[in-house]
Amino acid sequence: MRITVMKFGGTSVADPEKIQRAAERAVAERRKGRGVVVVVSAPGQMTDELLTLAERVAPRPDERELDQLLSTGEQVGISLFSMACLARGAAAVSMTGAQAGVEAQGPHTRAQIVRIRPANILRELHAGRIVTVAGFQGLNDAGAVATLGRGGSDLTAVALASALKTGSCEIFSDVKGVYTADPRIVFEARKLTRLGFEEMLELAGAGSQVMQARSLEVAASHGVSIHVRSAFHREPGTWIVPKENNTMLEKARVSALALDKNEVRLSIVDVPDRPGVAAEVLSVLAKRDIPVDMIIQSAPTHRGVNDISFMTPRAWASKAREALASAAKELNARVDLHEHVAKISAVGTGFRHHPWVAARMFETLAKNKINIHMIVASDLRISCVVDAKHGETALRALHRAYGLGKSR
Amino acid sequence: MRITVMKFGGTSVADPEKIQRAAERAVAERRKGRGVVVVVSAPGQMTDELLTLAERVAPRPDERELDQLLSTGEQVGISLFSMACLARGAAAVSMTGAQAGVEAQGPHTRAQIVRIRPANILRELHAGRIVTVAGFQGLNDAGAVATLGRGGSDLTAVALASALKTGSCEIFSDVKGVYTADPRIVFEARKLTRLGFEEMLELAGAGSQVMQARSLEVAASHGVSIHVRSAFHREPGTWIVPKENNTMLEKARVSALALDKNEVRLSIVDVPDRPGVAAEVLSVLAKRDIPVDMIIQSAPTHRGVNDISFMTPRAWASKAREALASAAKELNARVDLHEHVAKISAVGTGFRHHPWVAARMFETLAKNKINIHMIVASDLRISCVVDAKHGETALRALHRAYGLGKSR
Repeated sequence: MRITVMKFGGTSVADPEKIQRAAERAVAERRKGRGVVVVVSAPGQMTDELLTLAERVAPRPDERELDQLLSTGEQVGISLFSMACLARGAAAVSMTGAQAGVEAQGPHTRAQIVRIRPANILRELHAGRIVTVAGFQGLNDAGAVATLGRGGSDLTAVALASALKTGSCEIFSDVKGVYTADPRIVFEARKLTRLGFEEMLELAGAGSQVMQARSLEVAASHGVSIHVRSAFHREPGTWIVPKENNTMLEKARVSALALDKNEVRLSIVDVPDRPGVAAEVLSVLAKRDIPVDMIIQSAPTHRGVNDISFMTPRAWASKAREALASAAKELNARVDLHEHVAKISAVGTGFRHHPWVAARMFETLAKNKINIHMIVASDLRISCVVDAKHGETALRALHRAYGLGKSR
Repeated sequence: MRITVMKFGGTSVADPEKIQRAAERAVAERRKGRGVVVVVSAPGQMTDELLTLAERVAPRPDERELDQLLSTGEQVGISLFSMACLARGAAAVSMTGAQAGVEAQGPHTRAQIVRIRPANILRELHAGRIVTVAGFQGLNDAGAVATLGRGGSDLTAVALASALKTGSCEIFSDVKGVYTADPRIVFEARKLTRLGFEEMLELAGAGSQVMQARSLEVAASHGVSIHVRSAFHREPGTWIVPKENNTMLEKARVSALALDKNEVRLSIVDVPDRPGVAAEVLSVLAKRDIPVDMIIQSAPTHRGVNDISFMTPRAWASKAREALASAAKELNARVDLHEHVAKISAVGTGFRHHPWVAARMFETLAKNKINIHMIVASDLRISCVVDAKHGETALRALHRAYGLGKSR
């Protein structure tokens, strides 16, 4: 029996009508004779509502209990989804993470999947049932529910595809696929047919919300291709696939642009120019699990000091500033926070050997009189930090400059 | 370690503030050095909301999936309750029915507890933790969640008290205890200090909402005393206890009155007076699990026919009428439904040998010009059906006539 793994995100199952539409797709797939496993997220805003409830009961809720609480959202999702399949005449059965054999370990609220024992799922598939599996959760050694953190349902889908050896999984959400740029900002933005894992990972790092880096990494290392598509439209979306063997064609390619306005720039200014200082500063951040991107250390000034700057998500800004403040005090330095910034990135391949990609970005921004605060470039991504107010203009100008709107 | 089993109903944990107040009571009990097990219901209207959601997805939702869905209500309850205990500095851990070792069998949505394996609970109690257990649910042989039907959380509490050999359990709800009559109707109604299981069972049958008959039966057969009390007040409630050995005092006693306006009277009229007819009629109802009370068959008329009447909950009326209609057709009889009726009952002991109890009821109703439609009397209960509009007058008059307002 060939098996399809489908995953429906929270917006795809936000209300009974949407659940019914999603269930129709699962039933149609089953009627083609395939085994169907559906990973379901918590409907709509349920997770946020439960979180609010928890915070009203306890300002800093215990994490084991938070997992026990939050996991009910997905349990509601799978049972409603199964009911909808059954109401359409298809056999179906729902499984919590525990029932589906999803084993997790690590700290509560951010656990990892260790393995999936798919015996229960396979038995039900062979009995002809659509199996709905609660995303975002597993059972740990202590017999407690452990949730997988952000993007956890995507991770469940990828891990199931790997355990069931399907080679791929379908991720249904409210976006139609991966675009050359955000189509709400760039009118000519084009949906990509396929994209390599590495590029998608860079896009996630550049602020694309389509998929979390974690699931992409697991998918890449287990060889699971991902079809990102819309729950509300029939047409195919974007396939995220292992890197194609294109070592012969040493051509640079820009695949897509991303604009991220959800980060702030933090700088620690006038730190002494001696070995180990950068490590000291970064370890302060690492110890608190603060995500950073675009770390830059300036060349030392004549006064023997330099600056270290980086980008961090807006939600982490105050925590990061606090952490830096104590380090700064010891180093006799000071901390600057720039809130009104945007990160604009070009993602693709072969950038290192083809400096025209970077050059064209700088030229285009200059032509539009947009000042660049920071630059970081790798083989797969070039990111510039600009004033927030210039973000959208920059995105449109670069989309034209790289010719992304034309079909290739 | 001495163990206390407490159960908080849905209205006692309806919002974060109420959960915090309930948690305070559990924490206070723990600080006395006792092991504390708390059975928690689904907060407020959560079960009804989930049920509505299910019906919007599928008009007749699959029952296995409905159990998977509804059990999340109690899971939300236990995790929030544990968080509130932890926030107050007490160690606590929540357990679903499965985690707590509650084994169930029987049809989904109305399963029964087979046994509880309390090893997990005992381990956590000995580690000093307050253990919150999801009421209303267990795990069946197939590894699926099975819910226990109405009053299921009380049942969980009683079964836990039995498995943990505590001898008693405390049932917290929005009522202060068992009263001689509904205090919203009878101003002088008095809270009873203690009451026998048999009397409480009769009160439940007579329409008292304080506890379901199922839990009382299990409590009686396992020797678990129940303390029914308010979640919002400190004073003791009513103890429901095994019958005291009072065979020496052959005195009749009326303990309490109940008024039930949630039942209707159904009659099948002009059925042939031959053996087996009553059984035929009742088996039609039994086959459909329709609850009945006060079955009465009239003496045959000169035409060789008679009437069979009974009371059934209003919610079952149309189903019962439908079932009777087909039986009536075969018997050449007809079905009458009387909707505007009320059942008024006196509950106590020794009625059979003390006819003054029944006589006083009939006299009192006659004095108040209240016509009696039906009468059923046993040793522990006398029930009369009267017009609905007379129900409250009858209740007040009888409360005075039996002297229930005075302290005994």
